[in-house]
Amino acid sequence: MARERSSLTRRSLLGAGAAAGIGTLAVATAGPAAAATRDADVVIIGGGLAGLTAARDLKKAGKNVVVLEARDRVGGRVLNLQVPGGGATEGGGEFIGPTQDRMKALADEVGVATFPTYNTGKNLLRKDGKNTPYATDGLLGAVPPIDVAGLANAAAVQALLNDMAKKVPVGAPWTAEKAKEWDQQTFETWLRHNAVVPSAKFLFDVACASVFSAEPRELSLLFVLFYIAAAGNETNPGTFERLTETANGAQAIRFKGGSQLVPIKLAETLGDSVVLNAPVRRVAKDGAAYTVTADGITVRAGRVIVALAPPLAARIEFDPLLPAGRDQLAQRLPMGSVGKAIAIYDRPFWRDAGLNGQVLSDTGMVRSTFDNSPEDASYGALMGFIEADQMRSLNGASEAEVKAAVLKDYATYFGDKAKTPTAFLLQRWDNERFTRGGPVAYAPPGVLTSYGPELRRPVGGIHWAGTETSTYWYGYMDGAVRSGERVAKEVLAVL
Amino acid sequence: MARERSSLTRRSLLGAGAAAGIGTLAVATAGPAAAATRDADVVIIGGGLAGLTAARDLKKAGKNVVVLEARDRVGGRVLNLQVPGGGATEGGGEFIGPTQDRMKALADEVGVATFPTYNTGKNLLRKDGKNTPYATDGLLGAVPPIDVAGLANAAAVQALLNDMAKKVPVGAPWTAEKAKEWDQQTFETWLRHNAVVPSAKFLFDVACASVFSAEPRELSLLFVLFYIAAAGNETNPGTFERLTETANGAQAIRFKGGSQLVPIKLAETLGDSVVLNAPVRRVAKDGAAYTVTADGITVRAGRVIVALAPPLAARIEFDPLLPAGRDQLAQRLPMGSVGKAIAIYDRPFWRDAGLNGQVLSDTGMVRSTFDNSPEDASYGALMGFIEADQMRSLNGASEAEVKAAVLKDYATYFGDKAKTPTAFLLQRWDNERFTRGGPVAYAPPGVLTSYGPELRRPVGGIHWAGTETSTYWYGYMDGAVRSGERVAKEVLAVL
Repeated sequence: MARERSSLTRRSLLGAGAAAGIGTLAVATAGPAAAATRDADVVIIGGGLAGLTAARDLKKAGKNVVVLEARDRVGGRVLNLQVPGGGATEGGGEFIGPTQDRMKALADEVGVATFPTYNTGKNLLRKDGKNTPYATDGLLGAVPPIDVAGLANAAAVQALLNDMAKKVPVGAPWTAEKAKEWDQQTFETWLRHNAVVPSAKFLFDVACASVFSAEPRELSLLFVLFYIAAAGNETNPGTFERLTETANGAQAIRFKGGSQLVPIKLAETLGDSVVLNAPVRRVAKDGAAYTVTADGITVRAGRVIVALAPPLAARIEFDPLLPAGRDQLAQRLPMGSVGKAIAIYDRPFWRDAGLNGQVLSDTGMVRSTFDNSPEDASYGALMGFIEADQMRSLNGASEAEVKAAVLKDYATYFGDKAKTPTAFLLQRWDNERFTRGGPVAYAPPGVLTSYGPELRRPVGGIHWAGTETSTYWYGYMDGAVRSGERVAKEVLAVL
Repeated sequence: MARERSSLTRRSLLGAGAAAGIGTLAVATAGPAAAATRDADVVIIGGGLAGLTAARDLKKAGKNVVVLEARDRVGGRVLNLQVPGGGATEGGGEFIGPTQDRMKALADEVGVATFPTYNTGKNLLRKDGKNTPYATDGLLGAVPPIDVAGLANAAAVQALLNDMAKKVPVGAPWTAEKAKEWDQQTFETWLRHNAVVPSAKFLFDVACASVFSAEPRELSLLFVLFYIAAAGNETNPGTFERLTETANGAQAIRFKGGSQLVPIKLAETLGDSVVLNAPVRRVAKDGAAYTVTADGITVRAGRVIVALAPPLAARIEFDPLLPAGRDQLAQRLPMGSVGKAIAIYDRPFWRDAGLNGQVLSDTGMVRSTFDNSPEDASYGALMGFIEADQMRSLNGASEAEVKAAVLKDYATYFGDKAKTPTAFLLQRWDNERFTRGGPVAYAPPGVLTSYGPELRRPVGGIHWAGTETSTYWYGYMDGAVRSGERVAKEVLAVL
């Protein structure tokens, strides 16, 4: 029985500067005037896929929920960018693929259709100053035109990673027999001992940046193995190639209208349970209940779900203090460094040259690209990831500087036509107040073995969701949805 | 011209529950009633040694300063605990040693005397279930009774670490010729290749936990080398043994009345420029000035000095946003895990057995101890560090449980008399709201090379202080003082 003491104005779920082409949807927004107060069974902090999914399941079970979202839009790390002239393209999480069943089911449920990522024609390898097109898809599932020794080494390393990952239980990676051994070293240390042919090492370096938006030196080997193990579901164990491939991997499928349509439509079903512009500042327990204070609104509830990336969750004040292990976990899972740059053209001209728009490069600010054109190819869109060391090198750069660097890369890969897009869209997640990096919080060495159990361990009536709490597809939209479903069950079991 | 719009009440600098034996000192405290507003030339966030030293130097130069301290006491990670029956003992930073000139100069200036850490008699090695006393002081500077092969290996590893550290410039470790090589691996990876004799590895493991309150698997090798290089001053390059030794190292000297007397007396000279109970929530720029909002008080100033450990600084809201590099740095420097347990006895009975109270152990919750008795030995005090894996294993433990575990260890080392102290004091830094770990924020692999320059880089009118910004004695009280002196100069150069 949500009781509302001051009126909440209604506004678009899309946010002021966000995607167009989709009607304005009614949800609540915390007003700057008198603070509203609500009572609920469960208050959910964060209106991304995790928080919204949890809200859906709790509402289905008859519970009153309030979702407090800091931004002026829902979706978190899933964001449609408006294409001038019409249409939307993705500035954040974008693709799904085989075994990402929960995100697919959610999209089906809210009525968002999918289509295959454009994958016709040849990939392009840019290496040692040369462009070499090559057939079939993917990064290591296909056969990039490197030396035979490198290919053999890469295949062996991939097989070894997959074998090791099979020994990592996704629900508790820290219990793997060799967990300590694997968590005491960086992925870089391990790669240097195993990816001994330079061209093979290059492939894994690019793959690492693409998957984690972090360099191998930043990641725990155990975390990488867990991430591989998590790239599957209960019946299909995860594999490295499912992370990196297009047609058969995590980049296989896109959403019509842009991926943010899924959280937007989901939020629509929740009505004014979702409150925008409500960054949470404080979670205080008194008696058996919690008072969650956000800008413009205060919610009292018996249970709290925190559906934020761990480093962001640590910026909320908790009273009483979170246990040491939980706080220190949050200090130890930093966000990667990622931006997405999308250049819009009249048409996808690279297709004329038999290219699928997918690049793998050893130089440039953008070293991995996709054809982000809409299904009907009514315009062309080249999407490039700016990741890890490259993203960091642009700290403080203006958008014009980033644009110039990116278009230089696109021209190197696809010719001079790439230099003159009709529009250029840039989404830097490191400059987003309520994300401060992306796509995901990763674990440096020593974190999973010392703090892993804190990831999902409730603290009194406070429960944890978000893709970083997922067993399968940690770091992906599918993991976020899974975490929302899991945490709703967890809360219902005790409510 | 500090202009005060509402009265600030006066209270003890020591805090409600903190040390006694020192008179109540007058400073301001932010009241819970109407918020005060002040104007200042510089507002300093954090009343630890760094912030207070900066305030001293800025005041000397004629500037108006306000120091906003979140706690009800000054000193930050430097804290006197009251000993029942009288006297104080240290719950935080405690010792100084050779080359820690700036902390010594500050103590001299405010009139806090020093005395040598008790170091007469034999150290004790607890290993493989046996206690073995051994002569002279220190950890590796002395000669612990381990096997000859282990000693030879340990000596070689120490020499190698010192040689490598000489190649790390303390002002910019990321510019070392081998910076990338050293930053891509954990200290554990390096130790496994070099400390190949198990007893030598044991010594470095214990030393690592003692120095960093972190395990070798958590630390970047480059960070460890920098820390060694920083254990010196402009004329005496840092060495590993200066970190670990007592008489000739960083544990050589103590302060009469307890180390917190230094910040307390320093704060006294600053009068009501220091405001307690004022946790800062927001730093907002408008025009050329900054508005810093704390609970109970708002300060407007042209310059802001943030003198907090990096992970804590990230929990303040900045408007405009901090640059991506600065925020991501803060996400990547977690606090170690440390507690101090001090058992009080009628007298230091271990001295009768010819022991100096210093233990090195391969088991137990406390694996490194000191004789923390006052100079006149009017009572006995055994101080033990609970560190890293051991501290984490006590996450959620009650104080009674910790006490039982610690006294069991003390009895193992010093006999049954240790089981019945007259008092037991415990300071868990991981459970402190405004520290959340300790003694220092450390760098996992990849952080210094990617983010190091952000440590001290000002952001507009926002400057950074705190021991983690120091070139020499990063992590120590001396580093905090140095950082305060450096940041004051930095601000004065532009004011």
